[in-house]
Amino acid sequence: MIVDIINKKRLGEELSFVELRDFFEGYLDGKIADYQMSSLLMAICINGLTDEEVYALTKIFIDSGDVLNYKLNGPIVDKHSTGGIGDKTTLIVAPIVAACGVNVIKMSGRGLGYTGGTIDKLESIPGFRVDLSEKEILKQAKDIGIVVSSQTANLVPMDKMIYALRDVTGTVSSIGLIASSIMSKKIASGADSIVIDLKVGNGALISNMKDANKLKELMIEIGKIYNKEVSVIISDMNTPLGYNIGNALEVQEAMDVLRGREENTHLVEVCYDLASEMISLGKKISKKEALIEVKNSIDSGLAYGKFLDFVKSQGGNINKLKVSKKTKNIRAYKSGKITKIDALEFGKLSVKLGAGRTKLDDKIDYGVGIKLNKQLGDSVKRGELLATLYINKDMRIKSVKELIEIN
Amino acid sequence: MIVDIINKKRLGEELSFVELRDFFEGYLDGKIADYQMSSLLMAICINGLTDEEVYALTKIFIDSGDVLNYKLNGPIVDKHSTGGIGDKTTLIVAPIVAACGVNVIKMSGRGLGYTGGTIDKLESIPGFRVDLSEKEILKQAKDIGIVVSSQTANLVPMDKMIYALRDVTGTVSSIGLIASSIMSKKIASGADSIVIDLKVGNGALISNMKDANKLKELMIEIGKIYNKEVSVIISDMNTPLGYNIGNALEVQEAMDVLRGREENTHLVEVCYDLASEMISLGKKISKKEALIEVKNSIDSGLAYGKFLDFVKSQGGNINKLKVSKKTKNIRAYKSGKITKIDALEFGKLSVKLGAGRTKLDDKIDYGVGIKLNKQLGDSVKRGELLATLYINKDMRIKSVKELIEIN
Repeated sequence: MIVDIINKKRLGEELSFVELRDFFEGYLDGKIADYQMSSLLMAICINGLTDEEVYALTKIFIDSGDVLNYKLNGPIVDKHSTGGIGDKTTLIVAPIVAACGVNVIKMSGRGLGYTGGTIDKLESIPGFRVDLSEKEILKQAKDIGIVVSSQTANLVPMDKMIYALRDVTGTVSSIGLIASSIMSKKIASGADSIVIDLKVGNGALISNMKDANKLKELMIEIGKIYNKEVSVIISDMNTPLGYNIGNALEVQEAMDVLRGREENTHLVEVCYDLASEMISLGKKISKKEALIEVKNSIDSGLAYGKFLDFVKSQGGNINKLKVSKKTKNIRAYKSGKITKIDALEFGKLSVKLGAGRTKLDDKIDYGVGIKLNKQLGDSVKRGELLATLYINKDMRIKSVKELIEIN
Repeated sequence: MIVDIINKKRLGEELSFVELRDFFEGYLDGKIADYQMSSLLMAICINGLTDEEVYALTKIFIDSGDVLNYKLNGPIVDKHSTGGIGDKTTLIVAPIVAACGVNVIKMSGRGLGYTGGTIDKLESIPGFRVDLSEKEILKQAKDIGIVVSSQTANLVPMDKMIYALRDVTGTVSSIGLIASSIMSKKIASGADSIVIDLKVGNGALISNMKDANKLKELMIEIGKIYNKEVSVIISDMNTPLGYNIGNALEVQEAMDVLRGREENTHLVEVCYDLASEMISLGKKISKKEALIEVKNSIDSGLAYGKFLDFVKSQGGNINKLKVSKKTKNIRAYKSGKITKIDALEFGKLSVKLGAGRTKLDDKIDYGVGIKLNKQLGDSVKRGELLATLYINKDMRIKSVKELIEIN
């Protein structure tokens, strides 16, 4: 009985594979209502899932739809980020990896809440198509070795339904649910190896190292069950990643990195790390060797060229990329060293500006956002430019002290 | 924001009056979805409510509808049972109390799950009307001092909605939610004093004494806030109450008790206790004096007469009360003493026979049920009759050892 299963989890007991399958498949079939699923999800968030339950749930998720299997020359490596403020790594890493001869076929999602989605960022490029058919995906992968598309209809449909429900019912933060949601999609997407960029910090889904390590362990174990090599790289998300936050602004910054115009920032570090890991897995070479290939792809312009091919192939016109003309400068209220650039506060601000969604049907303003002029640890003088807001409407901005701390 | 409130309770934090009011009133107004409410309810079930939150919720519940205020000669005392298997106390206690000159106006509910509702039991009497208007309630109360009606439309409408949702989402068992649900209805019903029959055991909503004492304390405190005298009597519900389980069968047993034909059973004990408490509160006399009045009302036939007046006044024809003609006997599988008559198992069996509901729109079969031939502690011989099932369709019965234990 439906309620018996919910009650069991409410009391903190372990659910069997059959109980989980009946419940989740029943939800997909419409036999179990939204309000019953959200009740179970909350019990899961508070009382947790055992490892066995997470493996069971991952299988149930995968079984709910198609499992892709591309036949390509060369390896396919997938990459997933758990999301963070200013996270444009996919836009940088995928062209680098493809330029080095490793295929990247990535299904991405839209942003909800503070974390922007890669799909939204790409859609800020006029003409860019994210809804490729499976046939188009295969053709483009064969032609240029890089595709980023929104999730096709029948890839883990159960996760789509559950994710939308979790988002509006305060049931996002369960390590077990996060693990099965990410891994089911990655496994169904058909890559040979998977690199996970796991963000930890106040601007991320996971805020502490204990949860991060547990999630890492679960994802690697799930990979083993399905014979996929899984690497998890844990990176900081207490500070926005890079200088730019906002959709078109992030595309601009990605292009700067690919052209070698941004160097030695935390963003570049993270991107190089992820790209070398992906190439290392794909080509079975050491990470050190892979890093040399990464740097060469930038210096030679091949990575940037791959980015342009990729955008063109999906119909985008990069010359038409636009950011808002209306701007507002934020200046230092005192001299000193920047000790904090609060990721969460900047995430909230970017949503307020119109760069993100709070509801699924909110419309995004691609041109708005924030361009930081300084990075964590930089010194500033009173009155110096800290950041520029790209805005669309006049609005009050919270005290700058909450956004950027100077000491 | 809706999700912020859910997240706060998921993390075990206290919600303010305003947060609770916004959330629950938002639900009533349709601004908050079922799946969001059930998620919050589950977080409440697992992480609990503080006393302050319970008081706040009770006020929010009461404020969602009308508060009745009858002008009658003499006191009005209300009675509520938290429900149990074979619990027909209202059918017995209300006529006794009314026969002793204390008005009883009671709003009752339908049964869901294992516990039958008084309204369902009364509806097993052909012609009995449970949907009285406020005007009819007042007239009947003035005429005969006893009314049992289903909840009128605008009495704590919020509780109606929340209760239906809790029932199908595994979120029934929260002491705080139970306290505010019961007390909001009792306070809005307009009685001067309230006696609560709190059942504890495997066949009841509350299964242990710790929870029972906490619930008792909360209900008394809520009563103080609204200047209502509240008495809570805790009684056992590990064993079905009385001999009969099932709607028409329970009406028959209630009549037996009122005619003095059933004596010295646990059922009679509980009824006398509740009735004396109600009369004691209503008439401001000692419970000992009240008990004498109770016994006199039975011996004189006044209580039974009051029952007949009550049934007739609400349109019922007691002579047409029918139980199922098809029966099946359960006999002792060995000789010995009866050490257990499992309330929960008998509850499940009665639902299986058709005497209860598992879904709100299930149809009840009034004539089916179980008539026990023995009580806890009685001695039996092998082959002796333990119980008779009143059935409608042939069905397999679980091993009798799980229902009645003989040692």
